[in-house]
Amino acid sequence: MNGIIEPRVLKGFRDFLPDKEARRLATIRTLEGIFSSFGFLPIDTPVLEYTEVLLGKGGGETDKQVYRFTDNGGRDVAMRYDLTVPFARFMAAHLPELTLPFRRYHAAKVWRGENTQRGRYREFIQVDFDVVGTDAPSADLEILLLMARCMEALKIPDCRIHFSHRGVFNSFLTGIGVGEKAADVLRTVDKLAKVGAEETGKTLSELCGPDGARRVLSFITAKGTMREVADRMAADVPPDCSGIIRLREVVSRLEELGLSARYVLDPSITRGLDYYTGIVFETFLTQLPQIGSVCSGGRYDDLASLYTKERLPGVGASIGLDRLMAALEELGVGATEGRGPSVLVLFMDESLLGHYHALAETVRAAGIPAEVYPEKRKLQAQFSYAEKAGIPYALICGEAEKARGVVSLKDLGTRRSWDDLSPDALRGKLKELHG
Amino acid sequence: MNGIIEPRVLKGFRDFLPDKEARRLATIRTLEGIFSSFGFLPIDTPVLEYTEVLLGKGGGETDKQVYRFTDNGGRDVAMRYDLTVPFARFMAAHLPELTLPFRRYHAAKVWRGENTQRGRYREFIQVDFDVVGTDAPSADLEILLLMARCMEALKIPDCRIHFSHRGVFNSFLTGIGVGEKAADVLRTVDKLAKVGAEETGKTLSELCGPDGARRVLSFITAKGTMREVADRMAADVPPDCSGIIRLREVVSRLEELGLSARYVLDPSITRGLDYYTGIVFETFLTQLPQIGSVCSGGRYDDLASLYTKERLPGVGASIGLDRLMAALEELGVGATEGRGPSVLVLFMDESLLGHYHALAETVRAAGIPAEVYPEKRKLQAQFSYAEKAGIPYALICGEAEKARGVVSLKDLGTRRSWDDLSPDALRGKLKELHG
Repeated sequence: MNGIIEPRVLKGFRDFLPDKEARRLATIRTLEGIFSSFGFLPIDTPVLEYTEVLLGKGGGETDKQVYRFTDNGGRDVAMRYDLTVPFARFMAAHLPELTLPFRRYHAAKVWRGENTQRGRYREFIQVDFDVVGTDAPSADLEILLLMARCMEALKIPDCRIHFSHRGVFNSFLTGIGVGEKAADVLRTVDKLAKVGAEETGKTLSELCGPDGARRVLSFITAKGTMREVADRMAADVPPDCSGIIRLREVVSRLEELGLSARYVLDPSITRGLDYYTGIVFETFLTQLPQIGSVCSGGRYDDLASLYTKERLPGVGASIGLDRLMAALEELGVGATEGRGPSVLVLFMDESLLGHYHALAETVRAAGIPAEVYPEKRKLQAQFSYAEKAGIPYALICGEAEKARGVVSLKDLGTRRSWDDLSPDALRGKLKELHG
Repeated sequence: MNGIIEPRVLKGFRDFLPDKEARRLATIRTLEGIFSSFGFLPIDTPVLEYTEVLLGKGGGETDKQVYRFTDNGGRDVAMRYDLTVPFARFMAAHLPELTLPFRRYHAAKVWRGENTQRGRYREFIQVDFDVVGTDAPSADLEILLLMARCMEALKIPDCRIHFSHRGVFNSFLTGIGVGEKAADVLRTVDKLAKVGAEETGKTLSELCGPDGARRVLSFITAKGTMREVADRMAADVPPDCSGIIRLREVVSRLEELGLSARYVLDPSITRGLDYYTGIVFETFLTQLPQIGSVCSGGRYDDLASLYTKERLPGVGASIGLDRLMAALEELGVGATEGRGPSVLVLFMDESLLGHYHALAETVRAAGIPAEVYPEKRKLQAQFSYAEKAGIPYALICGEAEKARGVVSLKDLGTRRSWDDLSPDALRGKLKELHG
């Protein structure tokens, strides 16, 4: 291998071959269709930003994972590690050009230098959608509805959207006298599904004492209909708690819309991030609970306080596309390109090259993809190419057929042939195939 | 602005607001549709690669422009600066999994630290398409056809694809005794359109002497029908020059397909890159010649020689999406989202929140995007939002209408109203709007 460079990719990075990439594109297109139907608009932001803009002046847990470097102009820059921070920066920068409430979606790659041993990738696609510029319950409801419609459109057989409210949880913690530990308790509860009740209980005991831990565990494990759980939660907070009023409103509207079966009011949902202040949610696939949430988010008080004094409340969610696609593959469902019939024009005679391309154009005009086998080879080699490439039909035309103005179409699966097709007959046949 | 971080973006980088991003996505979707109809398949590769893989062991003119750094694991990495090198690496890595000839397309961002003073961006989208694994003239023809179909699909009113052949030019240069200067001559000729004939003549004189310069200029400025120019070129090279045979074949097939008007045989097309060995081409918009080529490419002998001993001949082209989109905007044409009618459900009464979302779902079920105004505000404020957001219809329902099971639909442009619509009447009206 003298002088040859090994064509390797970086750890945690991946090539996408056609089948997988086509599925990924089709999934994104399907989601975009749903977003558009809800009036959400696409935006894009740069992959590279000033590090100060992405990470602020301090630095949190994620910082070590960020791809950060000095560019050729001496600037401290970083690759985006999520789509939320760039969106906040975007809103602050373009506020005068935008109409509030502003609904946006953004499907794009992000990068994190994660530990790949946990089966994580360092380059992956997130699909984010938010309504910004309103505090109203209608927006909470809208995001919850939209999440359900996305899952439906991807033909996921069974999933549940679990939700709760950060304000209610904080109010409960204050009530039992551990308000100042709220952030730690939230992060501990957020790991409940991962580490189990025992481990969670132990950590909670250290934080809130044994009695506090018991009360927290009881609060977060409430089960029942949305209404029943809301009643249980309400019993643990003051009656004027605005969070519980909002939760009840959302529950009532979901019931009114006949969607109770899709949603679970689940007080153990807290989301780890400090960022959220209102409703929070996660989405679990009933058949694959172990993969965790495929679509999560919540309401925030102020999106872009790092960049502007303008208060921008909103609510949004993010789909981890790679985790979702892995799940869809495992379940054998999902958006497909609906790869219908396609046609290979066989190469029989060099003098007919132009004619073959004209025939391919005829097939395409009927809405069916067509390609010309590029050179004269044994028919067996051409059929074998069609089989490997997954092309189900062949169009055959030699000198004699050309002279008579006809072609043959062959179904390579059943080996059935339709011979001596006139241009009109061919178009008719193609229309039939196209369905 | 105490503590506020300025929401600025890096020089040469851009945010895309909804109108522009929707247009960009629609353009990519349109192109993808054409690629699929020709049997081309999508792939994706990582944005970050080992620097050695992207730049090889040496380093060329582009190296200074590459975003390159050491990652947290101490690896020398770089962001891709085109889609060709990653594609070559991809082919070498996945050869056993692919069926040849392999047709791929890839629409993705690339990064170059270009001088922004020349109006260039440092982050931009390329759209590449190639047929790899065949030397055949059919593949040359296919790429030329595909380029024309792409331009048509984007509704570009008038463009010409100029093409020539590197082998023919090299053979001509050898014939006039300046074969060893071929690379410099090619690069000089490549700049003809930019710097003009006088400047080009001067540089050529230095390279080939005054007589050589005169002959080169005469060769590259041949004008006429494709057949006439091919004859002129043929007169300057040996009769067994394989390039001229190939050129004549392509010219004849384009004529046979009735496409002569779209293509110009133009011996001044050389493409600067060493990479190309056969046919080369560029695409000019007749109404905007000054923006240069919007789709360029050519045939290469061996795509992936850096990474594999397997010879992979092919032919492909690349669309500079940003330059093309700027042109489309200037011409007032291009793919559009076909942003049809959409509906704003007005917020009249807080008790009807669930009903408003149900109405929005009814509108969406009819194929029309719908959104609910998120809170109760003066009607004027809601109408004003609709106007700014470009939403042409409003759906109105108060307590009284809800009680009678009806709604009103209002055309906000003409101010015409359809009142007391039953659910069936609404669906009928929406169907009408949907067209």
